[in-house]
Amino acid sequence: MFESAEIGRTIDKSTFDAEEPALREALLEAQYELRQQARFPVIVLINGVEGAGKGETVKLLTEWMDPRLIQVSTFDLQTDEELARPPAWRYWRQLPPKGRMGIFFGNWYSQMIQGRVNGRFKDAELDQAIAGAERLERMLSDEGALIFKFWFHLSKKQMKARLESLRDDPLHSWRISPLDWQQSKTYDKFVRHGERVLRRTSRDYAPWYVVEGVDHHYRSLTVGRILLEGLQAALASPQRRAAQPHVAPVSRQSSALLASLNLNQRLPRDDYRHQLASEQARLARLLREKKMRRHALIAVFEGNDAAGKGGAIRRVTGALDPRQYRIVPVAAPTEEERAQPYLWRFWRHVPARGQFTIFDRSWYGRVLVERVEGFCSEADWLRAYGEINDFEEQLTDAGVILVKFWLSIDQDTQLQRFREREATPFKRFKITEEDWRNREKWDDYADAVGDMVDRTSSGIAPWTLVEANDKRFARVKVLRTLNDRIEAVLAKD
Amino acid sequence: MFESAEIGRTIDKSTFDAEEPALREALLEAQYELRQQARFPVIVLINGVEGAGKGETVKLLTEWMDPRLIQVSTFDLQTDEELARPPAWRYWRQLPPKGRMGIFFGNWYSQMIQGRVNGRFKDAELDQAIAGAERLERMLSDEGALIFKFWFHLSKKQMKARLESLRDDPLHSWRISPLDWQQSKTYDKFVRHGERVLRRTSRDYAPWYVVEGVDHHYRSLTVGRILLEGLQAALASPQRRAAQPHVAPVSRQSSALLASLNLNQRLPRDDYRHQLASEQARLARLLREKKMRRHALIAVFEGNDAAGKGGAIRRVTGALDPRQYRIVPVAAPTEEERAQPYLWRFWRHVPARGQFTIFDRSWYGRVLVERVEGFCSEADWLRAYGEINDFEEQLTDAGVILVKFWLSIDQDTQLQRFREREATPFKRFKITEEDWRNREKWDDYADAVGDMVDRTSSGIAPWTLVEANDKRFARVKVLRTLNDRIEAVLAKD
Repeated sequence: MFESAEIGRTIDKSTFDAEEPALREALLEAQYELRQQARFPVIVLINGVEGAGKGETVKLLTEWMDPRLIQVSTFDLQTDEELARPPAWRYWRQLPPKGRMGIFFGNWYSQMIQGRVNGRFKDAELDQAIAGAERLERMLSDEGALIFKFWFHLSKKQMKARLESLRDDPLHSWRISPLDWQQSKTYDKFVRHGERVLRRTSRDYAPWYVVEGVDHHYRSLTVGRILLEGLQAALASPQRRAAQPHVAPVSRQSSALLASLNLNQRLPRDDYRHQLASEQARLARLLREKKMRRHALIAVFEGNDAAGKGGAIRRVTGALDPRQYRIVPVAAPTEEERAQPYLWRFWRHVPARGQFTIFDRSWYGRVLVERVEGFCSEADWLRAYGEINDFEEQLTDAGVILVKFWLSIDQDTQLQRFREREATPFKRFKITEEDWRNREKWDDYADAVGDMVDRTSSGIAPWTLVEANDKRFARVKVLRTLNDRIEAVLAKD
Repeated sequence: MFESAEIGRTIDKSTFDAEEPALREALLEAQYELRQQARFPVIVLINGVEGAGKGETVKLLTEWMDPRLIQVSTFDLQTDEELARPPAWRYWRQLPPKGRMGIFFGNWYSQMIQGRVNGRFKDAELDQAIAGAERLERMLSDEGALIFKFWFHLSKKQMKARLESLRDDPLHSWRISPLDWQQSKTYDKFVRHGERVLRRTSRDYAPWYVVEGVDHHYRSLTVGRILLEGLQAALASPQRRAAQPHVAPVSRQSSALLASLNLNQRLPRDDYRHQLASEQARLARLLREKKMRRHALIAVFEGNDAAGKGGAIRRVTGALDPRQYRIVPVAAPTEEERAQPYLWRFWRHVPARGQFTIFDRSWYGRVLVERVEGFCSEADWLRAYGEINDFEEQLTDAGVILVKFWLSIDQDTQLQRFREREATPFKRFKITEEDWRNREKWDDYADAVGDMVDRTSSGIAPWTLVEANDKRFARVKVLRTLNDRIEAVLAKD
């Protein structure tokens, strides 16, 4: 969920200076159009890690736009007035009217995450608070509100560096956050519980946007663009209410995640033979462990065409007895499957405890091929992220160990492999017209992968991006990741 | 919530025999059309009190319709297969495909209510299960499923009588439920937790239908009609997905609740004077109690035009210092209020602890006048029941004592009062063209009131129906109810 916000993205000053004026003008224009239409309010929630630039970004927004039409609210300690009433009263009284924008600091998410971090309550109570937030936001959205939820993020290292630099700067030292943020334990807890909250509450009608907070140029332009595109789309929508549109910058932002991979990592043949044999033996041993009887194992393989999914899967199964695993190849749904909700075809293959199922492509088809090819509506794939998170949470709650791989190659490597396939008689069946067509949508797929990782990679079910230009490197990384993950889960038993 | 399912409604055999053939034929026809269109599945959840005729009704449905197109599933003890997988797997494997109907006994609701009744978990875990059910049903609905949720109900007395009669009947004694149902403690718990579940999960996309289970003719026709109207509406809807239509029989069923009132209860003048003074003194005393500082008090007054709301409110405030209460008269929303979500105008008047606010008409306008007059869309008022329940739960969670009155008069009494108003100079302003127009929609309002009570009357915020043909009787009943309720809440402190 936070992967793409920890890769250290920056935008240099000259790019920023070149882009800022146009963005600023467009935002102002959208803001006046919003007032003019007075058809819906805009609610912006500001959350995230301490020191990630929340305050600075909001300050900048009020400078870019007309501050008379923006109401910024902070919710720190409750006032006497507020304490005497139901907790939500303080938010209701600050709601922006139609045509205006309200920016909420220290909102319901801050309260619930802080409460959980401080140990004031447990997961069950956190889930109650989450359900309350979902109900509130769905109601607001049904009533027409356009909701943006920003999570400003820093890696632990980035946060420490930032807090230190702020402390040393006399102009900014007043900003230094409570002492406990200096401790990395607080960071870990905050991010862990924050992730649970984001996973549950990133819904089609009110998605989260995770923004990397290190560089102020990057973070300002990103937030500005997301707001602008979302506003413009909602203002242009003929519907009575504000639709929650899919905002492209997030994708552009996320595809940077793939671009940040070093795809050319290689493994020499001898190292490969040695490491492969050792990881295969390790897998065979792990699957025989007594503790595995309490778990099922699911491995999901997604990746570019010709990225080597099949080969990687064969190396995984190579060490195992065929009775120990089952491979589910996912292609077009059958007639029976089309007559059911889309997750049905995967639910039917959920392994029982002690079993191991490998999905060669998976439920992520909805947010990959179906999204890119338009096989389902935007509304369908937008809600799919939340549904998939629900699904995977049910799996892991029931003890399933879930490991998800995206095998990534670059365009040149793919082209070369396509040509090899065409030239090799027994591989020719593997290459079709469709593969060539998909290639043309390379960037769309990269966007879709970025969004997918942003919205569905979490502590309970992380994505592993596998650099796969070199098949040997990829296969060993897959096996090792699988083994590491099994070991980590069993160690916690 | 269960009020209208405890009034002992029956349908005699000859009426039943006259209606059954046509209903049966129409159901069969709808069923074949459903198969023909194969556009969406139908999921029917069967829940409720033991002995209320769940099994018999489903048996009858399979006799009326083509059983080959209905799949009945019971979920008792989990099988080994099911125990080895996430809990929801057993439901997914039984989902009906598009064009078919699946009837689920012992579904997710049974499991969560039973678990709570047996004390296996607390409210927080129950709320987690409820949130899970909401997510599942919303996903099913987004995927096109038409969902009916039936709660078969009996009052405690009715249940005891029914279980005894079954026990004495050799043909039916096998049906006798587990012994603990014979104990009224179980009934109380079951109904209390069931109400919490219904309150939270009665959503526009999957509403609950509460069916009184005493009389098998009544209950069979009611369920049959609800299914038929819901099916027909969804089959006729041009939308890609099955809409969850508003099904009229529930209303027709609920308006019976008003019809069941004895409106002519009277209070002689001397008794009135005496009782009024005594209840007013009691209210003044209660509001001065130290414990009241921890609570706020809200009284909601709704009722037919000319039912005497104003007079009743004056009798309530008559005993109090004007600084002790505030009256919020609710008319058309202001411009500022129209620019906000509809509950906003009520949130702003939520009293602080120690305060008492009287709403002369209220947030129920959405499901009464706005529904009947078409001031909002069907989708808006259908989702309002859930939103209102959420709102009121937040109030009572924060210590607000919430008392809701519906003042009910009959049409003759209203006519007489309208004429008197026209004849009395200082009352003439109280009668308008609109009042006469509203009269013409008497039955629509009765339906709306019935639905309102069915869906928003609960242990934490019950409706009190006040028989108001006699103003004296009504005023004393209002004051006494208010006092009783305050006392009951304070006693639990």
